[in-house]
Amino acid sequence: MTASGRTRVYFEDLTIGWRFVSRTYPVAAEAIIAFAREFDPQPFHLDPVAAADSIFKGLVASGWHTASISMRLLVEDGPLFGAGTVGVAAEVTWPRPVRAGDVLQVHGEIIGLTPSKSRADRGTVTVRTETRNQSGEIVQTFTGKVIVPRRPAG
Amino acid sequence: MTASGRTRVYFEDLTIGWRFVSRTYPVAAEAIIAFAREFDPQPFHLDPVAAADSIFKGLVASGWHTASISMRLLVEDGPLFGAGTVGVAAEVTWPRPVRAGDVLQVHGEIIGLTPSKSRADRGTVTVRTETRNQSGEIVQTFTGKVIVPRRPAG
Repeated sequence: MTASGRTRVYFEDLTIGWRFVSRTYPVAAEAIIAFAREFDPQPFHLDPVAAADSIFKGLVASGWHTASISMRLLVEDGPLFGAGTVGVAAEVTWPRPVRAGDVLQVHGEIIGLTPSKSRADRGTVTVRTETRNQSGEIVQTFTGKVIVPRRPAG
Repeated sequence: MTASGRTRVYFEDLTIGWRFVSRTYPVAAEAIIAFAREFDPQPFHLDPVAAADSIFKGLVASGWHTASISMRLLVEDGPLFGAGTVGVAAEVTWPRPVRAGDVLQVHGEIIGLTPSKSRADRGTVTVRTETRNQSGEIVQTFTGKVIVPRRPAG
């Protein structure tokens, strides 16, 4: 157990079909704009007035903001992997934009477990998540490969 | 031309093999820690001392921080797509971590152009980028699909 009350898990502790659901995370207009100023300075992420004239018809979050929020929820409420959540590859889709005032939640599942061929001390865990808004609509799908160590001896 | 001097490009303006290189972007330890506090609160992103004991042997940026920086460089220095850079899907790999003090640069290429079957006014552009550090090592590959409108009539 850790300070947060979660049990640290190693490769051999995990099973395909392990599911988790995160807490909810509200996305304010100010946060959308602050992220966009630093990382994705486009009018539909920066300015509600310009955004109203865009293809989105309103202010929307950068997809990378959605991905970053989803990572936070995965790190906080997903499995507490032995060496941390260390991703090596990810596939992301954004079927629907995140709008100011949306409340996000991550629903996740372990869908793959592949022992390393070259390193006996680890394996690759494939995690799939859906990030949903307050209406249950999917705003992001994510499939990622995480390196997870086997339980240390002793 | 726009205020930034770049020409806005539409689907029919683009060709496979179009290449671009961004400016350079230095990544400070403080920025790595600030991003991690908000989006990826794990010890190897938050604390140089704890990070020294991690599998990374030092402070490293969240992969989502690398992705977000790469987006900024793509938005600033990639093609100025007609409706903005609106991604619908992405594949990302992080072959090597980004460390405090690294200087990143994005090298990009258009690798696919697919007219929309259902919407005559747009197409999908596939962009591939490599984000490289000051030693030329690849810290991220990205392949993304961007919706790009055809040139408006008139």
